[in-house]
Amino acid sequence: MRPRTSFIFDLDGTLVDSVYQHVLAWHEAIRAEGFELAVWKIHRKIGMSGGLFANMLLREIGVSISEDRIERIQRGHTAAYKRVADTVAPLPGARELLQALTKNGVPWAIATSSHMESASRTLRALGVDLEKTILVTRDEVKHAKPDPDLFFAAAEKLGVPVETASVVGDSVWDMLAAQRARALGIGLLSGGYGSEELERAGAYRVYADPQDLLDHLDEVGGRQ
Amino acid sequence: MRPRTSFIFDLDGTLVDSVYQHVLAWHEAIRAEGFELAVWKIHRKIGMSGGLFANMLLREIGVSISEDRIERIQRGHTAAYKRVADTVAPLPGARELLQALTKNGVPWAIATSSHMESASRTLRALGVDLEKTILVTRDEVKHAKPDPDLFFAAAEKLGVPVETASVVGDSVWDMLAAQRARALGIGLLSGGYGSEELERAGAYRVYADPQDLLDHLDEVGGRQ
Repeated sequence: MRPRTSFIFDLDGTLVDSVYQHVLAWHEAIRAEGFELAVWKIHRKIGMSGGLFANMLLREIGVSISEDRIERIQRGHTAAYKRVADTVAPLPGARELLQALTKNGVPWAIATSSHMESASRTLRALGVDLEKTILVTRDEVKHAKPDPDLFFAAAEKLGVPVETASVVGDSVWDMLAAQRARALGIGLLSGGYGSEELERAGAYRVYADPQDLLDHLDEVGGRQ
Repeated sequence: MRPRTSFIFDLDGTLVDSVYQHVLAWHEAIRAEGFELAVWKIHRKIGMSGGLFANMLLREIGVSISEDRIERIQRGHTAAYKRVADTVAPLPGARELLQALTKNGVPWAIATSSHMESASRTLRALGVDLEKTILVTRDEVKHAKPDPDLFFAAAEKLGVPVETASVVGDSVWDMLAAQRARALGIGLLSGGYGSEELERAGAYRVYADPQDLLDHLDEVGGRQ
């Protein structure tokens, strides 16, 4: 029996063009609490779970931060991001890629480290029918990326063995979590990381953005 | 005769933490003119000369844009950047690195694709004495990076042969221009590019940020 391919997509930076806005929103929130952290370091850590992101902050800043201040930073990020959320657009080819998979009968799901509230807003901007879409958010798993829980949950909802799935993501955390789930990782450059960073984190193939993946879908089992 | 080493520094992303703010300011200005361009593509082109950047826009967007609209985009970028300029800080170790070179008697200069107006503001934020600093800006050369003119001019002001200089920069355009000048390129990750991107563009060594370069200054001829 030939295993069918399925696709599990990350959301921010993979289907929607929101990474840089998130990065500067974190930067603003961290500064507002009186800490200095270079922007590129925030960029390199984004996409991981909020808890691990907070731990990273502690390590990078080199001081211990109270739970209160971490919460204020998280609320600050949410507020700063909301102010620029209307500049966030779907990435080129994102809608068409999902439509093509549906048309080809290839199962797909979205698995994001975001909470449902933020993810559902993003998905509406993407023009995705929330009723018909298999979606796993931060709320449904104990650990987010780089832990593999989100991808296990997505595979279960899709009814496929996770080791037959391909995980499409823009960050090294997606690729590391894909390896831990024994799924294949497909990297996209649209989150602003270099292709070698993604390959070294385990991507077996890297494309520029959703349109580029759509143009080469036959290379990775997307036509059946 | 043993040639002395000298250092020519890029400014944005190399000494000050301003790349992501510039990227989103361009994104806002491009959107205001009714064009969609993914943010990571802007990031990958930043640091090159304004004229080449405009040409890149034409290619990426795939339509021809009138001079008028290009000028409006440039003014839009300047206005959007000014609104967030107060979030721009020196990168860790930037001041200390320049002070150490001065103390070690190693000649150094700053060469930037920015115009004097914007560069002098940035340099004041960095705490650099404009009277005592050898500086080359966009206003002084015909072509900016990835053309080598800025580095030729900086070497001339320093009174050193350009092939004995090391160019420190965060973008592939710095590294390509360094190669064209037959200078050595030293890459910093603080502009948000991957180390392999910088190495493939010709960096003979890559450090995280100015502090990391300062910590390893003896590896690249900075102590004499």
